[in-house]
Formats: sequence, C-alpha cells, structure tokens
Amino acid sequence: MTISKKLKKSMEQGSWIRKMFEEGILLKSKIGADKVYDLSLGNPIFEPPSKFTQLLKEYIEKPTAGLHRYMPNAGLPETRSAVAKNLSTEIGLRFTKDDIVMTCGAGGALNIIIKTLLDPGDEIIVLAPYFAEYFFYADNHGGKCVVLDHDSNFMPNLSMLDDVVNEKTKMVIVNSPNNPSGVVYPKTVLDELGIIIKNLELKYGRDIFIVSDEPYRKIIYDDTSYNHIFSSHPNTIVATSHSKDLGLAGERIGYVAVNPNNENKTEIIDGLTFSNRVLGFVNAPALMQHLITHLQSETVNIEQYKINRDFLWENLTEIGYEVIKPQGAFYMFPKSPIEDDLAYVSKLRENNVLVVPGSGFGSPGYFRISYCVDDHTLKGSIEGFRKVFRDHR
Amino acid sequence: MTISKKLKKSMEQGSWIRKMFEEGILLKSKIGADKVYDLSLGNPIFEPPSKFTQLLKEYIEKPTAGLHRYMPNAGLPETRSAVAKNLSTEIGLRFTKDDIVMTCGAGGALNIIIKTLLDPGDEIIVLAPYFAEYFFYADNHGGKCVVLDHDSNFMPNLSMLDDVVNEKTKMVIVNSPNNPSGVVYPKTVLDELGIIIKNLELKYGRDIFIVSDEPYRKIIYDDTSYNHIFSSHPNTIVATSHSKDLGLAGERIGYVAVNPNNENKTEIIDGLTFSNRVLGFVNAPALMQHLITHLQSETVNIEQYKINRDFLWENLTEIGYEVIKPQGAFYMFPKSPIEDDLAYVSKLRENNVLVVPGSGFGSPGYFRISYCVDDHTLKGSIEGFRKVFRDHR
Repeated sequence: MTISKKLKKSMEQGSWIRKMFEEGILLKSKIGADKVYDLSLGNPIFEPPSKFTQLLKEYIEKPTAGLHRYMPNAGLPETRSAVAKNLSTEIGLRFTKDDIVMTCGAGGALNIIIKTLLDPGDEIIVLAPYFAEYFFYADNHGGKCVVLDHDSNFMPNLSMLDDVVNEKTKMVIVNSPNNPSGVVYPKTVLDELGIIIKNLELKYGRDIFIVSDEPYRKIIYDDTSYNHIFSSHPNTIVATSHSKDLGLAGERIGYVAVNPNNENKTEIIDGLTFSNRVLGFVNAPALMQHLITHLQSETVNIEQYKINRDFLWENLTEIGYEVIKPQGAFYMFPKSPIEDDLAYVSKLRENNVLVVPGSGFGSPGYFRISYCVDDHTLKGSIEGFRKVFRDHR
Repeated sequence: MTISKKLKKSMEQGSWIRKMFEEGILLKSKIGADKVYDLSLGNPIFEPPSKFTQLLKEYIEKPTAGLHRYMPNAGLPETRSAVAKNLSTEIGLRFTKDDIVMTCGAGGALNIIIKTLLDPGDEIIVLAPYFAEYFFYADNHGGKCVVLDHDSNFMPNLSMLDDVVNEKTKMVIVNSPNNPSGVVYPKTVLDELGIIIKNLELKYGRDIFIVSDEPYRKIIYDDTSYNHIFSSHPNTIVATSHSKDLGLAGERIGYVAVNPNNENKTEIIDGLTFSNRVLGFVNAPALMQHLITHLQSETVNIEQYKINRDFLWENLTEIGYEVIKPQGAFYMFPKSPIEDDLAYVSKLRENNVLVVPGSGFGSPGYFRISYCVDDHTLKGSIEGFRKVFRDHR
C-alpha cells in the first residue's frame, strides 16, 4: 500500500457531486459540451462586482508596503474590523475584530472550527438534507457526523434531536439558505433549536455549539429575511465565505465570527487562530483580505439567479414535478417521481441533463438542480426534465 | 471545557517562535520598537518582483473570464503546466502537469502530503534541527514525529537512521536549505539517505517517502548548488511555496511535485487532490495561481540577504561566536556560549536582541538568528550580541 488506507476508504466513499462532474466531462467529450445540460455544480457564474476590479487597480497604483508578507494568523486587523463593523450593522450585535478570524473560504472556516471544538470521538449533528463535505471535515479531526432528518418542507425534525444527541455531541451544523434545498430556516426554527440545545447542554453538562454555515446568506429572494443564529444561543459561531456573494469561490476568502456574547470567546478565537496556523492555512490570502475589507456591503447582482429560479420552478411545476420554491441559494430540490433517485438521475443523464441524486445529501428520493448556469443550459434542460417525467408517469 | 482538550494541550506546547514574537511585542511597547532588535521571525522583507505588479496590471486590463470561480482541486491546468515546465528545466527530469498539485503554501502542501500518506499511528522522521510546525502537522493526521539527530555540521546522523525507523515509519522530512541552520545538504547526503531508505523499505516491506520541504530552494549563496531529491529515490515528493522566492508569504501559494518516475504517482496525486479538497483548502488561491504561472523563473533580489549574512557572520565570528556560515535560507544558528540556550536567549532579550532558542528546533545549545531584517535591526543587534558574549566568557 502506498497511500493511507484511511484516506483510500474516504476516497472510495467519494462524492456524488464529483462523480456527476466526471461523468459530465465524459458525456460532453462524447456528444459535445453544448448538447449537455449540466446543472450539477454550484459554481457561481458571475464575475466579482466592478468595485473589486477598481480596488485592485487602486492597489496597483498605490501598493500597501508589506501587504504580501506573513501577518497575524487571525488575519489583517483592518479586515477583521471591517467584517465586524458590517456584521454589527447587519445583525445589531456589537462585534469587534477580536470576534473574527479570516479564513480560506467556508471550507477552511469549518475545518478550524471543528479542530478547535472537537476531541477525537466527539459527534456533530448535521441536518438533512446536508452538504456532504461535512462528513469529511468531521473525519479530518477524529469526529463523526450524525444525521437529523427533515420534514416534508425540509425543516429539521427538532422533536427528534433528543434521540441523536448524546454525551459525545459537541456541535450542530445549520446551513441556511440551504444547499441543496434552497429553504431558509425561519427565526422560530432557530430559536427552538437554541432552546432545545440549551436543555441538552444542561442534561449532558457540556457545551454544544450551533455552527451556522452560511455562504449563501446574501443570496435570498423575495421578502425572505436572513435570520442570524446569534440571538438563539450564546454558543453560536458563523462560518462563511465571499465565494458566492462576491463571486470569489476560487480565491478562498471567508471568515469565522464568534458570538460576541459568548463568555469563552477569547479561548475559542485563540483556538481558531492556532488551528488556522497548524492546519497549514496560516492566514487567509493577503491580497483578498485587503480587497474585501472595502467590499463588505457589496453583493453580485442576484437578479439573474432569481430569474433562473422562477423560470425553472414554473417549468418543473408545470411538467408535474413536486418541488418547493427556494427562498435562497441557487439550488432546487425536487422530489424524484420514482423512489429510486439514482435511477431517475441516470435517466436524466441519458437525456443529457446532469443533476445530483438526493442520496448524496442524505435525502434519497430527491435530486438537486443547480440553477447558477447560463441561459442555454437552463432552457435546454427543460425538454429532458419533461421527457423523463412523462416516461415515468 | 469549551474547546477541545487535545487542541488545548497542543496550544500549551505552543511554539518558541510565537512566544518570542509575543515577548517582542511587549518589549517594543515598553521601550519603543526602534530600540528592539527583533531577529526572531522569518518574514521576508522584500516586495514581490516588479513583474508581479506588471502581470496584475495586465490582468486588470484584460481579465480572464471565470478566473475567480471554483476550479479543479489540483489547480489551474496552465499553472500546473508552467510549474512542471520550470521543474523539468531546473531538474532535468520530465514533469507534466499531472505530477503537480497547487497548494496554499508549503504549510498546506505538507498537510495534504501527510494526510495522503499516513494512517493513524504512522511515524515521520524529522531531521534536527527542524521546523517545529512538523510536529503539529503530523498530529493533525494522527501521526507522530521522531527525531534523527545531527552532527556538528548540522548534517543528519544517517548511520543512526536504522535505530529510529520502524514498521510504522512512512515518511522522512528533509528541509534543505535548512531552517534554522542555513545549511544545504550536499548530493552525497541525499543519495546516502535514498540508499538507506531503500534498504529500510525492503526490511519493513512498505513504502517510505522522502518529502523535501524546500521553500528556501532559490535562496542559496556563493557557489552552492541546489540538490534535488528526485534522483536519490523514486518515493520522493517536494513541498514548496513562493513565500520566500517571490515574497508572497501572505498569499499562500505553493505546490507539491511528485517524482515523475514514481510508479504509484497517479494514486498519490489523486490522494493529494482529494486531501486538498476535504481539508478545506479546496484549491490554491486562483488569482495567485494565475500570476505565478508567469513568474516561474523570477526570484526576489537575494543580494541583500547575502550582504546581511556576510555582515552578521563576520561580526559574530569576530566577537567569538562559533557559527557555521549558512549556504542558504536567511537564518544563522550559532552555538550558545553557555549550555542553556534558553538562559542565553533571555540574556540577549534583556539587551533588546530577540532570537529563538535552539530548543525550539530540537537542538538545545544553539539559537536561531533571522537575518531577513532591515539594516537598522541587523546593525543595531551587534552591540547586544557582543555584550552578552563578554558577560558570559
């Protein structure tokens, strides 16, 4: 054996999204990319806001001396202050730079949070349908994910939380706006979660953190409001990135924000900073930190995402699919017309439409459509959705 | 307990370098920054080469559409090709993009290598004096570091390798040019290491990798030549970054190169790519990948480092310090005139000179001086070095 046995096993579990991605490449090379309607990936299609380029230009004209050097592991003080200021305005709690750690995207953020909070053997509750990477992130640090199921509206079955939490539970991950369902948890759900967790903390005599993974926070439609987690419980931490709201997914820039009212926040921030260092992130990329300092109130134009959502939802509903209209993110999660979502997704692929089976998100019987795609892809996919639906009626 | 017990323990072991850093801040706030001669950090003082800014300008004038999006986890194909091409020229072996994974610096590179190769309980041999972060990197993935000692020239005691390798050994980390000693291992040492490892692989019936951590590869003085590791053994992997050679430490851009003649290289690259993804790096920062594609043959002007080295070495030798003249990197590792390096370093601090005790690098009885500092700091430090030496004579 050359590589790690443990890693090999993880790799074999693989990822549905990645699998679809590879099958998509194969199909595209066979019949031509323009004939394949690939709705399998959540790769933002927009360029960053024009202010991004303008700031880059200003930087070149007047470079900050020493910007590209090592810095404190938590990030540039001015960037952390700008993030804190924006959060204070948005949320109405008083954040300072000492509540913020800049990270390599939300993936980096979640990894340093898990390393900071979990001991080997500890458990994380994930709410189905979930982003499958959580399982790998937990495993990186000796942790284990345990799933809490959802109701027909993709809301967590909070009444079942008591059954899945035990003396090893250290964290619950909330992801709203949700990937893959596009639902946004209402404040009542977050508050109920907070109350139940408080009781479970008393029952087991240990802290249990609610970690909100919210890279889609600013991608919200209609009159839906973003509900922050901080007022629901003091043991709350946000992990996020500018991948989607500023179109910077490849630049790996995000942050962790710890509840300013948490009584152990200094210890937590110190742990996050240390974890950022020893996991090899060291610090979030310097130039991006510098740029996003001045982009905290900017967002890519999400109007096109809304147009895509409406077009897709109207067409799928008209065909006969059962699908909840998403309130955020850029995914839709229809019910598979047959129980076997893997088989249904295969049928769609035979008709040149690529989507991801719900099994990859802990919710068999559904499939995920990403609508952050161009017009040709979105419109071209409808015929395949219609044909396969009719064939299975 | 709020944070992880395991992490808390790691944090208490802390880091000498960080400790000095904090004591330095305290001292500076007390007596004024200009009166403290801080030679404790390896933070490159040069700005990136002018071509870096020029490329950034070109990018703004004609942005590559979609550059900031997600990309393959191994990195941009054109960047990997450029790195491969440069390595092929430099080393004389034929690398292709499929031998390269772009990473978030050398710290990120080492973490994905360790995750890819080690199973929990596996061991890594580190050669004293060593970069202390290796211990944390190994621990991240359930591994353990075992130290091989050095001779009086800071060359590894290869004849003792048999005593520290066992059936759990999976890796040896080589760091040349070396932090903290500044020595460059000659080809004979690397070849001998390769032969011994080959025999130990036969003895234990498993692959043992030689991983060369070489962020200082291009910071080499006089007629010393960089000796690559690839011809010494097929199980060889390079981890490096552009932190020092291009002055981009804060930008987190580096790469892994796997020996193109390794028969399992596809499996290794797949493991590295997967590890890059699940550890939350996802990919090396996109814009930096784009820029360094065209900077593979550039290096910061190292002439000033050489001037600093010569000045410091001549002065220390003249004072009476026993110190090997470094051939690379930007560190010097004098013998402490008293056995207790911690006490000696404290005395230097009392005289406003900050350096790091050798104990932090597994070599008590020495201390590390970083000479990538400005003129004022370097020249101002000599008086303290002289005074404390005289006091202890």
